[in-house]
Amino acid sequence: MTLKINKDEVAVFAIGGLGEIGKNMYVIQYQNEIVIIDAGIKFPEDELLGIDYVISDYQYLAQNRDKIKGLFITHGHEDHIGGIPYFLQKVPDVPIYAGPLATALIKGKLEEHGLLESTQMHVLQEEDIVNFEHLGVEFFRTTHSIPDTLGIAVHTPQGIIIQTGDYKFDLTPVGNQPAPNLQKMAKLGSEGVLLLLSDSTNAEIPTFSKSERFVGNTIHQIVERIEGRIIFATFASNLYRVSQAVDAAMQNGRKVAVFGRSMEQAIVNGRELGYLDIPDSEILDAADINKLPANKVMLLCTGSQGEPMAALSRIANGTHRQITVQPGDTVIFSSNPIPGNTTSVNHLINELEEAGADVIHGKVNNIHASGHGGQEEQKLMLRLIEPKFFMPIHGEYRMLKIHTELAQLCGVPEDHTFIFENGDVLALTKNSARKADHVPAGDVYVDGNGIGDISNVVIHDRQILSEEGLVIVVATIDYHKGLVLSGPDILSRGFVYMRESGDLINQAQKRVFHTIKTHLDASDKVNEAVLKRDIIDNLQEFLFRRTERHPVILPMIISTQV
Amino acid sequence: MTLKINKDEVAVFAIGGLGEIGKNMYVIQYQNEIVIIDAGIKFPEDELLGIDYVISDYQYLAQNRDKIKGLFITHGHEDHIGGIPYFLQKVPDVPIYAGPLATALIKGKLEEHGLLESTQMHVLQEEDIVNFEHLGVEFFRTTHSIPDTLGIAVHTPQGIIIQTGDYKFDLTPVGNQPAPNLQKMAKLGSEGVLLLLSDSTNAEIPTFSKSERFVGNTIHQIVERIEGRIIFATFASNLYRVSQAVDAAMQNGRKVAVFGRSMEQAIVNGRELGYLDIPDSEILDAADINKLPANKVMLLCTGSQGEPMAALSRIANGTHRQITVQPGDTVIFSSNPIPGNTTSVNHLINELEEAGADVIHGKVNNIHASGHGGQEEQKLMLRLIEPKFFMPIHGEYRMLKIHTELAQLCGVPEDHTFIFENGDVLALTKNSARKADHVPAGDVYVDGNGIGDISNVVIHDRQILSEEGLVIVVATIDYHKGLVLSGPDILSRGFVYMRESGDLINQAQKRVFHTIKTHLDASDKVNEAVLKRDIIDNLQEFLFRRTERHPVILPMIISTQV
Repeated sequence: MTLKINKDEVAVFAIGGLGEIGKNMYVIQYQNEIVIIDAGIKFPEDELLGIDYVISDYQYLAQNRDKIKGLFITHGHEDHIGGIPYFLQKVPDVPIYAGPLATALIKGKLEEHGLLESTQMHVLQEEDIVNFEHLGVEFFRTTHSIPDTLGIAVHTPQGIIIQTGDYKFDLTPVGNQPAPNLQKMAKLGSEGVLLLLSDSTNAEIPTFSKSERFVGNTIHQIVERIEGRIIFATFASNLYRVSQAVDAAMQNGRKVAVFGRSMEQAIVNGRELGYLDIPDSEILDAADINKLPANKVMLLCTGSQGEPMAALSRIANGTHRQITVQPGDTVIFSSNPIPGNTTSVNHLINELEEAGADVIHGKVNNIHASGHGGQEEQKLMLRLIEPKFFMPIHGEYRMLKIHTELAQLCGVPEDHTFIFENGDVLALTKNSARKADHVPAGDVYVDGNGIGDISNVVIHDRQILSEEGLVIVVATIDYHKGLVLSGPDILSRGFVYMRESGDLINQAQKRVFHTIKTHLDASDKVNEAVLKRDIIDNLQEFLFRRTERHPVILPMIISTQV
Repeated sequence: MTLKINKDEVAVFAIGGLGEIGKNMYVIQYQNEIVIIDAGIKFPEDELLGIDYVISDYQYLAQNRDKIKGLFITHGHEDHIGGIPYFLQKVPDVPIYAGPLATALIKGKLEEHGLLESTQMHVLQEEDIVNFEHLGVEFFRTTHSIPDTLGIAVHTPQGIIIQTGDYKFDLTPVGNQPAPNLQKMAKLGSEGVLLLLSDSTNAEIPTFSKSERFVGNTIHQIVERIEGRIIFATFASNLYRVSQAVDAAMQNGRKVAVFGRSMEQAIVNGRELGYLDIPDSEILDAADINKLPANKVMLLCTGSQGEPMAALSRIANGTHRQITVQPGDTVIFSSNPIPGNTTSVNHLINELEEAGADVIHGKVNNIHASGHGGQEEQKLMLRLIEPKFFMPIHGEYRMLKIHTELAQLCGVPEDHTFIFENGDVLALTKNSARKADHVPAGDVYVDGNGIGDISNVVIHDRQILSEEGLVIVVATIDYHKGLVLSGPDILSRGFVYMRESGDLINQAQKRVFHTIKTHLDASDKVNEAVLKRDIIDNLQEFLFRRTERHPVILPMIISTQV
């Protein structure tokens, strides 16, 4: 497809990230040049059963592959880089530009998918400028809950377009990490910015977020007063947090043992790239943790969101190979549960406490700070950049709405603000902005290794399976002789307890037998599809009448015809 | 006096504003050129009895009058402009540079002191640049609880020196007022700033301050739901607040009557300079307030700090010429009591409530926002300016201390930060900063019309008077004949109730008579000073033994000798 815009207009749209938190992907196009920002995944909500990830619909980009100049990455979180392997499978050979840490994380993904060799990767430094024929891309340092975050400024013939990435203004970042580059943002603002796309995640929070350093102080205070073993759980990608936990451990004479694959990888990346300063002597092999007294040890692990397969969950439920919780242990959750995870986190906390551990968690302890700026920081970005037009990104509708109101308070006229949905195209010139077109931008589901081959019907089935259960009907038929050789047998999962439902099953069997027999008697040439349809309809009606449930019914006919 | 610094060094010092909140006055000198920033007063604390104001010691500036190029004013608050008339009396003919509102307020003061004609005033706009031989001065917009606030950048041969004035980062200021000029601050930061002097008032508050607009929302909500008469008390100089109160009144069909001289003046200035948009039709003459129903009226007045002579106090205690509090009135205190004023404000609130008014006050109602930025804003200033050296100003020691720690967290090395006292001279070159000298910088007291003629001894006496009272001894003596012609009579104020202390007074009289007689008998030539000293010592010892108090004793001898 080709965008319905004028030749001199710049097109800006998202195929992920508007009206949702996750799978960020933004496209800027001028004539024959396309620049893409981020390619994230979204973790499915509970109703998407068996779906591993949700990614963006890449079809517009696949159709316009020849125009794509590069994929630019703001930072290494999954909702910004997680889609890259799937994107490259659909839209091959797009060069990727990313900061050092994001590059390391992306390479890990590409290797897993066998794409590392074939992908051209460029490691970005803040001061880099990447120029194409019409478009030029430059960068400014921001801060977020992962190191190496960049805001992106795309110079177009119509003006500068800025995409902030995820950000907070952490003015006192941990260690010797650099602060946000206010000067560069203000300079871009002074030059005149045409459009600002800005992170809306915390638009509902009226304050200025706490510095990560502030959390560090709390961690130090907590670690100092604990006497037993410490299990510290956080996001592996938040190397600032990891660094502060390790510092607190070392200052209190504790060695650190690392659990969970992503945490192990994070420690490797962090040490390699200079974000973590941990001498070898301070790292303890997992096998050796019982050789030291409890007050000389900190276990660092993943699973703070209650993920069932992560280290912490396995430690809690006793299935971890090396660690079991023991009375006297203190587990520190240095995170807030993401909304969908509240139940699993609460469950995990209960498990840990039942096993005898003390658990420290939640906002009351100042043991976590958000990686996204609140309203004051969103206003600060607006005032630094002073854009002519504004589009809030990265947030659900209500967040985008509030962010737009903030923009108006900061001097952007109401008709210069655009609350868009994924796929809506904004067409811009120096002096104008209008909603111009719509590209496909629905959710695409990734299930195991399959991409996008799961339809909404499948998802619907899975939902019914989970709620109503499954009934399988097996019969062996000799079509030639018009005989039912065996069965029909009926199996059920998640529907009724078979042993106690003999009567129901018997009657169901009889009905199915009757249906098959009717078909066999009626014709020499039985249409198996029609037969199956009839079995389903008939059985469905019967089972609903008896149980008020609608299980998924799967007829399997084994034919001896051939 | 001449500063003991090297010829190429720039000297920076304060003669007010360090270790205290108030009487700000900062001096920047390079060779034969001096630039002064602000000339404030401090309101005396309770122990300075009878003192109207405290001002800075101007002697260094008087002695170096020929070098002074100008006095630059950051904004129109008393602690930044209140000292100007006294300064000009000691150091005449210094040209003054100030923004439009500060200029209006300064002119009022100069007129009162008969100095208006003789003073050269320059009205500053943000984009102005004032150049002298070596020094150049430019300005950047900030926000504070009064309009027209400027930060000041002084370009010296050794580098840029920035004094922020008082500031918060109000990113959504009221009405169409401009936001802080982040771009200009960042640009100065990019050019390289040698020294930052930054407002420390709220260094103990860890957050980002609330926007004045936020208070406006609260005012609107409160005014909307009140049915009776509204008395709205705030600082006259906070035209933003006044503007929001008036808006809330007008939107709810109330006309506004103004009480208190400074509030009347503020309304005049605000309308003239375009900060207040109030049609004539919405302003009610004080005499007409009873002609309208209670729910059509808002009285706007001064006195929110419990000042005894201000409109609100007189309204509360029934001594106001036009208004008395009536049941159904609601009094809104849109301010927080300055620490020293808590008692008087509480007293005032009690008086108002006893008279039947509802009183809305305090932080719980979000009816006030500070004009000074919290830690996040101090950090933001540090990150925008990125100074090589840092000196916290405008604050008590503990605030300066915390602000210095913030500077270190923002990358200023510890040995590049200077917690100074008034008078301490910082000598700077491009690459160095050192404490170099000290100029006189004690408090100077203003009592009525007298400046600086009140010594610490006087203040000490006043303190004793207030705590222990006064005893006056009067005797008429004929030295020639050696006779006590009348008395000694004893008067007392604030010491004992005379009528009930006849015995004590009688005995005191006898003692004084005895002392005088001893002197008269001992010599023909009585030394009156020694006699008085003896009367004091003797009486003091006696009174303390009997009352355990140390009143001030004033012997008055009326002599018939001549």
